[in-house]
Amino acid sequence: MPEEVAAAPLARRILDHGLVLFRTGTGRLVALADRCAHRLAPLSVGCVAGEHLRCGYHGAEFAADGRCVVVPGQGDIPQGARVRSFPILERYGFIWVWMGEPGLSSLSQPCGIFGYLEQGDWSTRDGYIPIACNYLLVNDNLADVSHTEFVHATTLGSPNARATRKDGMPLEQQGQHTFQAELRDGGIDFCIRFSNTRVAQVFETAYARVRGRDGWDTLDFRLEFVFRPPGFWIFRPITMRSGAAPEQGVQLDAFIVVTPATATTCHYFHKSCQAYAPRDAEETDYWHEQTGIAFREDKAILEAQQRNMGAGDLRDFPHVSFQGDRLGFQARRLIADLVAAERGSPATAAV
Amino acid sequence: MPEEVAAAPLARRILDHGLVLFRTGTGRLVALADRCAHRLAPLSVGCVAGEHLRCGYHGAEFAADGRCVVVPGQGDIPQGARVRSFPILERYGFIWVWMGEPGLSSLSQPCGIFGYLEQGDWSTRDGYIPIACNYLLVNDNLADVSHTEFVHATTLGSPNARATRKDGMPLEQQGQHTFQAELRDGGIDFCIRFSNTRVAQVFETAYARVRGRDGWDTLDFRLEFVFRPPGFWIFRPITMRSGAAPEQGVQLDAFIVVTPATATTCHYFHKSCQAYAPRDAEETDYWHEQTGIAFREDKAILEAQQRNMGAGDLRDFPHVSFQGDRLGFQARRLIADLVAAERGSPATAAV
Amino acid sequence: MPEEVAAAPLARRILDHGLVLFRTGTGRLVALADRCAHRLAPLSVGCVAGEHLRCGYHGAEFAADGRCVVVPGQGDIPQGARVRSFPILERYGFIWVWMGEPGLSSLSQPCGIFGYLEQGDWSTRDGYIPIACNYLLVNDNLADVSHTEFVHATTLGSPNARATRKDGMPLEQQGQHTFQAELRDGGIDFCIRFSNTRVAQVFETAYARVRGRDGWDTLDFRLEFVFRPPGFWIFRPITMRSGAAPEQGVQLDAFIVVTPATATTCHYFHKSCQAYAPRDAEETDYWHEQTGIAFREDKAILEAQQRNMGAGDLRDFPHVSFQGDRLGFQARRLIADLVAAERGSPATAAV
Repeated sequence: MPEEVAAAPLARRILDHGLVLFRTGTGRLVALADRCAHRLAPLSVGCVAGEHLRCGYHGAEFAADGRCVVVPGQGDIPQGARVRSFPILERYGFIWVWMGEPGLSSLSQPCGIFGYLEQGDWSTRDGYIPIACNYLLVNDNLADVSHTEFVHATTLGSPNARATRKDGMPLEQQGQHTFQAELRDGGIDFCIRFSNTRVAQVFETAYARVRGRDGWDTLDFRLEFVFRPPGFWIFRPITMRSGAAPEQGVQLDAFIVVTPATATTCHYFHKSCQAYAPRDAEETDYWHEQTGIAFREDKAILEAQQRNMGAGDLRDFPHVSFQGDRLGFQARRLIADLVAAERGSPATAAV
Repeated sequence: MPEEVAAAPLARRILDHGLVLFRTGTGRLVALADRCAHRLAPLSVGCVAGEHLRCGYHGAEFAADGRCVVVPGQGDIPQGARVRSFPILERYGFIWVWMGEPGLSSLSQPCGIFGYLEQGDWSTRDGYIPIACNYLLVNDNLADVSHTEFVHATTLGSPNARATRKDGMPLEQQGQHTFQAELRDGGIDFCIRFSNTRVAQVFETAYARVRGRDGWDTLDFRLEFVFRPPGFWIFRPITMRSGAAPEQGVQLDAFIVVTPATATTCHYFHKSCQAYAPRDAEETDYWHEQTGIAFREDKAILEAQQRNMGAGDLRDFPHVSFQGDRLGFQARRLIADLVAAERGSPATAAV
Repeated sequence: MPEEVAAAPLARRILDHGLVLFRTGTGRLVALADRCAHRLAPLSVGCVAGEHLRCGYHGAEFAADGRCVVVPGQGDIPQGARVRSFPILERYGFIWVWMGEPGLSSLSQPCGIFGYLEQGDWSTRDGYIPIACNYLLVNDNLADVSHTEFVHATTLGSPNARATRKDGMPLEQQGQHTFQAELRDGGIDFCIRFSNTRVAQVFETAYARVRGRDGWDTLDFRLEFVFRPPGFWIFRPITMRSGAAPEQGVQLDAFIVVTPATATTCHYFHKSCQAYAPRDAEETDYWHEQTGIAFREDKAILEAQQRNMGAGDLRDFPHVSFQGDRLGFQARRLIADLVAAERGSPATAAV
């Protein structure tokens, strides 16, 4: 996340590459391979020196383009003394690094779903959770809300979600809520609507507090999800008085970016946003704290799931699928299509 | 051990299989593969729901026979939605799981050497020690009592065991003690008798306390061992007045069950039993505490031994054998015979 | 180090062999393979029994030559019951073990560069640092002093070393200091001289304290290095009044012995020596404490460097070299020559 990257270099593993991220003296954002061209020490244990990153072992300095530009006590810079430099950009409150072929960088147009943050008055807080599982398992998790009442029973789960669910009937046809999904802009938008329901404590509390009350009875509830491959998500619960329009409700947005670190580990970057009380940091803190608890519930089950697979993949094991897996399958297919289109060139990743 | 398995599911690795053990709402004991048929999450992080085990991820429920019987929000259960169910039985104060071919289960007749606990008035306490070594090394350890004076010098070892031992003379021919072993019921029974000796502090204390004294001088001592393959043991020291019959002595029984977890780890389940003061839990506690200390001395040397072999087997390294290894060799041979007879089908294991 | 090896056996891994080192009842120093010939338990968890090492499992005893000489309760010692015994010697304040072909042992003539400690009046203190990197990386580190101002900025680094260095000019030609290196006795001696400089705080403090002062201004400074393959080093800073002879200065010697444990771990034994105030242990303690801090700075960067290589070698990765690497290359070549001359027989190692 942007505030993680300052003058002190940050080591981060992305797509099995060790990267070092830092800001130069003039504030330029740089991503280099985290391995000195000289004796392979991690540059992340060095320090920023003006516009350069200085190795903490023998003091070699590297410019933003990865070239070695200073060797202490020596005039000539050896041929080939450079480290790989990765295209990097800060936008929409995230840092974007291009890990693929430099000439093909799509960084100038990062995924735009977070762009609306630039309009309007928003209060945000950033979070970061390392998760020891393949990033596709996180996508599967986010695409199938049926885990909410089991993994998030006391947090995001509605107290009467299970009661209102009618086992044996497709989710879409169940009385008190409707489910809609559509492919859009190469990704998926989906939305679940509940009428006259008891919403989860976190949403009820936020709704009631805005209206100066401690609690509330039944409300309408709308859960919007936006997915763009390979790992960009918006999770947007909106709580409103029964029959009211969403614009009149309390909207809490959580941005999530899932970035592969290795085959069995990934980064879960999240941003908690709210515009209903942008001057009130406590409202944002509350939302951030509640999502942080819930996302760590996901982390626990996801890491247990990966442990049960060892270093393997879901497809290495016999398993069955449920109706709730449909959107996760679609998400995986969209990613597979992108990978095929890039012919193996890895996609833009946020760090 | 039975009290480990309650409504909260217990994860346990047996013969390289991950198992989940639990009791249903009506108290039925169940062992399932610890991997949901849907997305491979460990079922042991779920919870018991009536007669079912509910997965903690998406709420799928599994019956005692392993069939998936509930998929939340969905009527049809997918074809093949089941996990492996293992025959399981609670008897003689242990839980027995059949890991082999279901049709060949011998669970109806588990190893009977612990059966006498069902007759008479016994006070018992259970213990469990995970040990990071191959289970055969534990059998070797139990079959060769010559380690007692070195590994258990201050616990089970007699203060004058070394003094009475005559180096250079076969154990059987040494004056103050005799040694007998016989094959019985597919296993080995052996017995060591000492006359007029100072017994280990733990036995002297127990003997003296029953008679209202603080200590005692020389006593007769009898150490009975019962082994049944692959890993069932009774360790039974009896202390008595010189010349008296064993029935008049203080008998302390320790049941030990050694169960393979992986090639280099195993479970050491033990039960401390005494009938000489069955209403007096403190006597049982004392015996349990003392065996717990001694068995952890074994754990330390066994794990050091395994570390010195890496993931290897004793036979991978040049080594010599001593006379004391004879019973251990016999025990290994009995197991090898069973394995050959089962043609690779793994045997009943206690958990 | 000598004081590490007492009656309690010490386990130490050298050149991928597990060794146990101990002193017998009469003080004889012994090194054996740390694996009982019987059941492979580590002998280092046993204990010394007179002139023997007794296994902590079944009590087998081994003599200094590695032969099993006692099997409790048994007259005959099995054929081949022995463990490897390694030639061992204590000299010059280090313990030397011969790991190669026994007949070729060069132990009678261990590396003599530390021999001057036997003449004169010295006060010394010993230290030991395990380092998780290949031992050649430690040699590289010691052979290239250009890391001092980066790794040891606040310890051994001179506050104005960077200021006096003229980037773009070979180190030898820079005004205020000269650099000399020569091959000697199969190794390398090198020396760096600074005139009229502010020396590092540790040297200034030691110099000033001898003269009853708190600090000092500019001084002359001489840094002598002695290297003998495969891993013997003397690091000898001498601080003196400008224009004075080294004999009039304050000389602080650090002996360093680098011994391979595995391909990616090594032992760093060091001895802090001073003769300018041999009755004053506080002076030695100060020097020992300061080198201990600095050597742990090396440990940190060396372990980071090795982590970046995984289990690999520097030559497995593309990299460039700087002028400062020349002596390290020479040191590696001297070792390679020795290895070739011994046709693979490993060299003497200190433990």
